[in-house]
Amino acid sequence: MIYLDNAASTQIHEDVLESMLPYLKEQYGNASSIHRYGRLAHKAIEKARKQIAQLINADPSEILLTSGGTESNNTVLRGIPVSDTSNQIITSSIEHDAILEPCKKLSESGLIVDYLPVDKFAMINPSELKNHLSENTCLVSIMFGNNEVGTVQKISEIAKICNEQNIPFHTDAVQAVGKIPIDVKELGIDLLSISSHKLHGPKGIGALFIKNGIKIDPVILGGGQEHGLRSGTENVANIVGFGKACEIAKNNLDENMAYVSKLRNILVDRVLEEIPEVTLNGDPKSRLPNNAHFTFLGVNGEDLIIKLDEYGIAASTGSACSVNTQRASHVLQAMGFSHEQITGSLRLTMGVFNNENEIEQTVTSLKKIVEELRSFSPFKEKYSFSKT
Amino acid sequence: MIYLDNAASTQIHEDVLESMLPYLKEQYGNASSIHRYGRLAHKAIEKARKQIAQLINADPSEILLTSGGTESNNTVLRGIPVSDTSNQIITSSIEHDAILEPCKKLSESGLIVDYLPVDKFAMINPSELKNHLSENTCLVSIMFGNNEVGTVQKISEIAKICNEQNIPFHTDAVQAVGKIPIDVKELGIDLLSISSHKLHGPKGIGALFIKNGIKIDPVILGGGQEHGLRSGTENVANIVGFGKACEIAKNNLDENMAYVSKLRNILVDRVLEEIPEVTLNGDPKSRLPNNAHFTFLGVNGEDLIIKLDEYGIAASTGSACSVNTQRASHVLQAMGFSHEQITGSLRLTMGVFNNENEIEQTVTSLKKIVEELRSFSPFKEKYSFSKT
Ligand SMILES: Cc1ncc(COP(=O)(O)O)c(C=O)c1O
Ligand SMILES: Cc1ncc(COP(=O)(O)O)c(C=O)c1O
Repeated sequence: MIYLDNAASTQIHEDVLESMLPYLKEQYGNASSIHRYGRLAHKAIEKARKQIAQLINADPSEILLTSGGTESNNTVLRGIPVSDTSNQIITSSIEHDAILEPCKKLSESGLIVDYLPVDKFAMINPSELKNHLSENTCLVSIMFGNNEVGTVQKISEIAKICNEQNIPFHTDAVQAVGKIPIDVKELGIDLLSISSHKLHGPKGIGALFIKNGIKIDPVILGGGQEHGLRSGTENVANIVGFGKACEIAKNNLDENMAYVSKLRNILVDRVLEEIPEVTLNGDPKSRLPNNAHFTFLGVNGEDLIIKLDEYGIAASTGSACSVNTQRASHVLQAMGFSHEQITGSLRLTMGVFNNENEIEQTVTSLKKIVEELRSFSPFKEKYSFSKT
Repeated sequence: MIYLDNAASTQIHEDVLESMLPYLKEQYGNASSIHRYGRLAHKAIEKARKQIAQLINADPSEILLTSGGTESNNTVLRGIPVSDTSNQIITSSIEHDAILEPCKKLSESGLIVDYLPVDKFAMINPSELKNHLSENTCLVSIMFGNNEVGTVQKISEIAKICNEQNIPFHTDAVQAVGKIPIDVKELGIDLLSISSHKLHGPKGIGALFIKNGIKIDPVILGGGQEHGLRSGTENVANIVGFGKACEIAKNNLDENMAYVSKLRNILVDRVLEEIPEVTLNGDPKSRLPNNAHFTFLGVNGEDLIIKLDEYGIAASTGSACSVNTQRASHVLQAMGFSHEQITGSLRLTMGVFNNENEIEQTVTSLKKIVEELRSFSPFKEKYSFSKT
């Protein structure tokens, strides 16, 4: 199989698995136990916390371990202190469901949630944020890189606006961490969500960066782990693997960025050149290095994926992190896409384990499949589906 | 090392790890993806769900996957619908912090939480429950087996009382599942928490049994996984391992119960016989097969554990699932223990990977250590510390 769905999940790096194995075998202590087994587990967690912190230039004490990106986002939205005079949340219309769904719940319970619009490239205009800020704003949450179309927001500008007003700024950086350089200090970020399985770590583990001084109430209560901010027996093996994945990502960041974006560029250039009536979606420049998102007019994206699967290529229409695949993408809707443009969309996301040969094969297969599907298309008269 | 802290966490069974490895290696798909990788992950999860369900005689559709026992408990307490006329929760004074802490938060937010008392064996009298039930009771949550002293409650009687009044009954069965037979249908249980790492599965994964028809609101919102009841990319490898652990536990339940309780009985008999001024705590009959909990008068439990650790024996004072080890056990307090009795407590919890030889060694070491510690004890005049 050619795996081009790295935005949905990634292969665990073999050194990551290697680092986890002792904690899946003989080192099975509960990190809260005071005997040797417990102390070893505790030490392993603190080492991982440091590795995670270093990837984003945070202090280890600022890293809260969670069960994943979804929990990290929920922790921010449910944990941020609110009051009658501090009850407005500003987010965007292109966030992941792990932001949008908790926001929906909060607005049902009386909070005011404002959704910033985006342009046709899925880019937020920071001046829009300025327009929406009020005395009552208690949180701004804007994602770093979009999981569907890959657009990377002007995080530094957005953070600056929030910092000036002393409003906590959160960014869902699940798709961006480990892919592009992120320095929370330099960028002025207060809260940032990470998910291990998007960066060649194991699933079911993530982190929330909480800048020293920012207050978050715990969502999951119990034994008082993570300084009372997230109770539950620690998932030692996955934490260790997550830490290792962060270390590897940090050590290879520039190299991986260059490699993956080269693959992506080959793919994009060839698809746009060799297949008619195709557009690249998302910002052409400010985008995640691993993301290619297309619209093939006159084709149904789901059919495309099923066919690609038959050809041994794993792809996605958009967010694979949502089980509501039937629903039209809210991101593409926010970008002003027509129903037809949305229907014809395909996301191909590369990773360090892909190679040029796979990209060549993918282009060849895509050409064949798109041509075949279009031959049945009801729109076939409307477009010129052959390159002349 | 001799590991006698199986109530804190357990060694992963080698067949469990074996079952997980494909999902830590080549099967890294996101279970929501529609391509082959995704479908395989999805199938693996559904197989595990069935294995988990079978261990407690539930339907697979009644199993909600969570990040562990703590999250399962929190899901019940935060997710149970409440209203102005349905706002009383009844629990007990010996619950795990993963029940008590969410309850504290709920009572701060205006709910009424009643804590049933226990007798000196940590046993709840079901008639006490009857006394506390009211028209406003929206949930009863009583643990199955206590994590410190091992007492197993009269769950069937308690469930019956709740069933008659049509009040949802939850039990935190984290310490009991896989150790003693549990049939949710026969017992009349509506909600039940499980944690994988207590039964030789991986950490960071658990389940909540939710009887068909019982309504629980989701705590973690997002992509809509688990039928919208628990969002977040599924931890496929750990789910698979958890399923396997349940299958193994089910297939060997009687045998393991006999084996572990035999070890436990040898330990208890010898300790009570060979060490003076020792009591066994918890119910002498209705207790978890793997639990031995003692008070050694005139000894500090923490010193005991540190010494045992030096002798290569991993033990605990009580709950290792709480990082607040400094705090006196609320369970022993509820049982009416004096400060001195609490101070001298030691929990030894056995598992299938222990053997008789380890138990012999432990008794020998314990005798030596207790004698040594008592020779420094300020209470040494008070008790007759030598068996005559
Ligand atoms: C932008 C974004 N946020 C949050 C999540 C959720 O993270 P997790 O998969 O760890 O639950 C995802 C993907 O799943 C994502 O792409
Ligand atoms: C009775 C009981 N409930 C809940 C928990 C918490 O479960 P977990 O360790 O999976 O968070 C534990 C132990 O940690 C426990 O012993």
